[in-house]
Amino acid sequence: MKEIKGTIASPKGFLADAVHAQLKYKNLDLGLILSQVPAAIAGVFTTNKVCAAPVLIDRQIVKNGQARAIICNSAVANAVTGEQGYANALKTQKLLAEKFELKAEEVAVCSTGVIGVQLPMEKIATGISKLSQNEGTAAYFAKAILTTDTQTKTINFEAEIGGQIVNMAGVCKGSGMIHPNMATMLAFITTDAKIAQALLQKTLSEIIETTFNQITVDGDTSTNDTVLLMANGQAKNNEILEGSSDYLLFKEMLAKVCQSLAKQIAADGEGATKLIEVTVKGAPNDLAARFIAKKIVGSSLVKTAIFGADPNWGRIISSIGQVANFEVSDIELKLQDELVLYHSTPVDFDAAFLSEKLKEDKIEIIADLNAGSGLGQAWGCDLTYKYVEINALYTS
Amino acid sequence: MKEIKGTIASPKGFLADAVHAQLKYKNLDLGLILSQVPAAIAGVFTTNKVCAAPVLIDRQIVKNGQARAIICNSAVANAVTGEQGYANALKTQKLLAEKFELKAEEVAVCSTGVIGVQLPMEKIATGISKLSQNEGTAAYFAKAILTTDTQTKTINFEAEIGGQIVNMAGVCKGSGMIHPNMATMLAFITTDAKIAQALLQKTLSEIIETTFNQITVDGDTSTNDTVLLMANGQAKNNEILEGSSDYLLFKEMLAKVCQSLAKQIAADGEGATKLIEVTVKGAPNDLAARFIAKKIVGSSLVKTAIFGADPNWGRIISSIGQVANFEVSDIELKLQDELVLYHSTPVDFDAAFLSEKLKEDKIEIIADLNAGSGLGQAWGCDLTYKYVEINALYTS
Repeated sequence: MKEIKGTIASPKGFLADAVHAQLKYKNLDLGLILSQVPAAIAGVFTTNKVCAAPVLIDRQIVKNGQARAIICNSAVANAVTGEQGYANALKTQKLLAEKFELKAEEVAVCSTGVIGVQLPMEKIATGISKLSQNEGTAAYFAKAILTTDTQTKTINFEAEIGGQIVNMAGVCKGSGMIHPNMATMLAFITTDAKIAQALLQKTLSEIIETTFNQITVDGDTSTNDTVLLMANGQAKNNEILEGSSDYLLFKEMLAKVCQSLAKQIAADGEGATKLIEVTVKGAPNDLAARFIAKKIVGSSLVKTAIFGADPNWGRIISSIGQVANFEVSDIELKLQDELVLYHSTPVDFDAAFLSEKLKEDKIEIIADLNAGSGLGQAWGCDLTYKYVEINALYTS
Repeated sequence: MKEIKGTIASPKGFLADAVHAQLKYKNLDLGLILSQVPAAIAGVFTTNKVCAAPVLIDRQIVKNGQARAIICNSAVANAVTGEQGYANALKTQKLLAEKFELKAEEVAVCSTGVIGVQLPMEKIATGISKLSQNEGTAAYFAKAILTTDTQTKTINFEAEIGGQIVNMAGVCKGSGMIHPNMATMLAFITTDAKIAQALLQKTLSEIIETTFNQITVDGDTSTNDTVLLMANGQAKNNEILEGSSDYLLFKEMLAKVCQSLAKQIAADGEGATKLIEVTVKGAPNDLAARFIAKKIVGSSLVKTAIFGADPNWGRIISSIGQVANFEVSDIELKLQDELVLYHSTPVDFDAAFLSEKLKEDKIEIIADLNAGSGLGQAWGCDLTYKYVEINALYTS
């Protein structure tokens, strides 16, 4: 298994394109992923009770389990747009299907951007008419889905599975309003693996728990979060079956793709200067470890302290204590591999030296709770002036 | 019932004093409240599993139900200080008891400030020796307990209850790390009312739910939160009994005191420029309404939008959807009394006009969920550059 260069269309039988439909001022804002043959599709969506029109449609498509295309626009989330918004999402689906001679129910639709604004359907229609099956523009897709992101977020892997080289690609977007279960985060994964839809869905749902659901930028869960995974079988491998070593390889590859995308989102949190990785060990179980890790990395006080390169372990301990429902009197804590707390007692450390290490752009916090063997990780970023600036000015 | 001027020592039979014990650079940092007779004492404490040494001691005192004094220091929280910290808290209690000829178990101890640092006991001892029963310095107490607060937070009320004028006074501190259940918030309430301890505790515990537990500055709950209420009976009223109209008056006065203190904390959130009050109506029940109100006012995205005077209702709706476990498809939303959403559909409004109204220092958000008759309120503040600055620089 290895990481390789590529685009979302690298797996066999996939194409991708993107255009500027004038939803944004001048950047790409309408993207397409197309599978030349029907693909099994799996998905995970926001749990926000206020969910966007496209999410309603995609949930149904994933239920049916099969798709040919994904059309995604940025700038407008098509959320809290009532009946008109839902009608517009269906219209988008229909226009794309007509353009490429597909069935409407094989077309997934996604939107991201400002809430409460209707899709400008004339622009959407014009944009769709410009999309094509030409090769060469696949890399544009990763750009077209961005909103406040500062960079594209992509990953490509390949592995030998079931007698063939199987390829998997991922792109995503997400910067502010990030707190999966699931935040304004869109992630698209394509693979040419041959695998049944039910197993695909089961695998994706499991992997989500330890990857996308473990990132937080500002504690908010949005209306549009979506992860879609298409598997079109074009690698012509022996079908991946549960329990096999091929399945373990496939699952591992999906985990690496999802973890990479999730970390890229966390690192690109609005205004972020540092990626923070929290590892919690010694919890009563994995679920508790993950929950606590996410609480720590989501704390505004921890995030601002990291921004200030302040080795402020008190705030980390306080975060643990807020959510632990078990005894936490024997905590060991390390920041950038420096021990700061042992048996819940402060340890002398060189604060100036540690502060220097906290100026790096990747911060590692490791807490051992000595209360079991549960293990979990979570990712986030520092809270900066720029976060406030972006969010005080950006109507979203 | 009316609000009046006064200090924490205004209720009959109370005294207060404060000194500079050199815990802070030059400001008052050690305060005392003394009742000349034993008082019934009620209290509510942090639920953080990592709780400070003084909290452990005070829980016991409240269990016993009677106290004569409260000694409170700032600058050092005496949290995560292990056995030595606990011993120091007991020593503080003992020194204060000796100074004023009390029993140690009648002395409650509180601390607020930096976590993980031991109390400098020589300074504490010297400070205690300087405290006195002279009148005239009672107003100092409110200052001595402050940490990152920008101003003292006090309130005084009087009412005719049980045939006498009964007086109630409150002071508190709290700015950052505020998110009761219960955050680094200390609140002290004195009253000369005659009321049994059990009823006093029951009343306080109820009032906490709709006041102190409904404020949030940054989502963090600290290690030291404490509310202590002493009632020494010196008003010599007819004992307040449950179910009586006198009890309703007393409860109303306590509610006004607690709500005032809670809002003062919310308004003085670190870096805050605006107090935000969220009212949720039409929830299935009051508990859900309070929960949702608190989620809204705690959202970093809502807080930064308010800072930027941005009428960004989308983020408010998203917050509701994140935590509602019932249908929320018929929401009515008002910002500064301007209708922005009706039947969950955007309403045309003058954005420039509303933005001007959002520059005021009190912001009112009212959400009607049309799903019942549950009502709840929560208070918080905007998220500003200054919050980041304060918390990136302050080791706490």
